[in-house]
Amino acid sequence: MRIDVITIHPELLKGPFDVSIIQRAKEKGLAEIYVHNLRDYSTDKHKKVDDYAFGGEAGMVMSIEPIDACISHLKNQRHYDEIIYMCPDGELLNQPTANQFSILQNIIILAGHYKGIDERARELFITKEISIGDYVLTGGELPAAILCDAIIRLIPGVLNDESSALTDSFQDGLLSAPVYTRPAQYKGLEVPKILLSGNFKEIENWKMEKSLERTKNRRPDLLD
Amino acid sequence: MRIDVITIHPELLKGPFDVSIIQRAKEKGLAEIYVHNLRDYSTDKHKKVDDYAFGGEAGMVMSIEPIDACISHLKNQRHYDEIIYMCPDGELLNQPTANQFSILQNIIILAGHYKGIDERARELFITKEISIGDYVLTGGELPAAILCDAIIRLIPGVLNDESSALTDSFQDGLLSAPVYTRPAQYKGLEVPKILLSGNFKEIENWKMEKSLERTKNRRPDLLD
Repeated sequence: MRIDVITIHPELLKGPFDVSIIQRAKEKGLAEIYVHNLRDYSTDKHKKVDDYAFGGEAGMVMSIEPIDACISHLKNQRHYDEIIYMCPDGELLNQPTANQFSILQNIIILAGHYKGIDERARELFITKEISIGDYVLTGGELPAAILCDAIIRLIPGVLNDESSALTDSFQDGLLSAPVYTRPAQYKGLEVPKILLSGNFKEIENWKMEKSLERTKNRRPDLLD
Repeated sequence: MRIDVITIHPELLKGPFDVSIIQRAKEKGLAEIYVHNLRDYSTDKHKKVDDYAFGGEAGMVMSIEPIDACISHLKNQRHYDEIIYMCPDGELLNQPTANQFSILQNIIILAGHYKGIDERARELFITKEISIGDYVLTGGELPAAILCDAIIRLIPGVLNDESSALTDSFQDGLLSAPVYTRPAQYKGLEVPKILLSGNFKEIENWKMEKSLERTKNRRPDLLD
C-alpha cells in the first residue's frame, strides 16, 4: 500500500512515521509513506498556501491552487483509490472504515489547517472526508497519523501476532475484557482466580462475560 | 499547565510536541510538557515493562510495577488534578471534556500499548480513561498527542487570534459553514456571491444557515 500525505508541517510527522508499527511496515515493504510539503507547490514567492476568508471570517483558509498542483502532480503518476481530507466535519472514523481502507492500493491523505481548505478544493478533488472525533485540533497532521496507524496495522504481515489485531477492542464490536499480568498479587490486589485456573473454556466464557459487561456499562451505544 | 506523558515510545512524540501550537505554547510559558520513558522505571535488567497475559490471551500486557514507580515518583513531587489513561474502552473525547481539562494545573497522561495495562493499575492510579475514537491503534502515544493538542490550544494566549478557536467546529455544537478564499473564480467554480457582498449581517445569516444545513446532512446526531 502506498500513502501520500500532503501537509504544511512535514516535521510533525517525523516521530509518528519513523518508529513502531509504521516503521516496521515500511521496512518489511508492506507500506510506503511519502510526505509532501504543500509549500513546495505554492507559486507564491513567499511559499504562501493560505489567504483571508471571503466574508470576513476570522482565521485563514488554505488556497485551492497549491492543493490542485500537488494532487494533480500525484494523480499524473498513478491511480489513487481515495483522496482523503482529514476534517472535523467529515465522516467519523470507525473500525469498519479502517478495515475498508486497509485493502486499498494507493491513497492520498490531505491534512487541513487553519479554518480548513477552500470548499471548491473539496468539491474538485476529495473523494472521502474523515474526522477522527468530535473535538477541535490545530491541524490534520495528527489525525492523518492516526488514520495511517489504524490502516497499516491491519495489513497482513505488519503485526507479528496476527491474532492480536483480531482480538482488539472494536474488531468484534465489543470492548475488551480486563487484562492482567504478573505478579498475581500486588499490594493486596489479586488477579481473578479464574485466569490462573488453566481451564481455557471457562476463561473464554469469563472474558466474553466481562467484555459484554464492560461494553454495557461504558458504551451501551455499541450494543445497539 | 503542566502535562507529564508516560510512554514506552518517547521518540514518537518528538514531532508532535516540538512544532506548531504546542511548541508555541511551550515558548510562551503557557504549557510545560515532560515526556517520561516508562522503561526508566523498570527494575528488570532488560528494562522490560510488559509480560504475558494471565489466562492465555494473545499479546502482551503492561506490568503494574513500572507504572506504579513512575506515577508515584511524579505524585511525590506535586499534586495532579487528573491521571488520564488513553485506552480504547475509555470515555469518548469530546469538546466539553477538552474544555474541562484545559483549566487544570497538572495532569499525567499514560499512553498504553500492547493489549493494555494490568487492570489493577487502572484501579489504583487512573482517575480518567479517555478514548479518542472507536478504532484500534498501535498505542496511546498519538491519542496522547491528540489530547494535548485539543487541550493546549484552548489555554488563553496560545492561539494568536482567540476568536478563531471559538468559531471552530464543535464549540457551538455545529459543524462549520464552508469557507472560501481567493481567487473568486477558479476553473469555473465561483465563490458564493453573498460572501463578496460586504453585507455582514446577511453573511452571518448565510453562515448560520450553511452550518445548520451541513450539520443536519452530515451529523444529525449532533442536533439531538
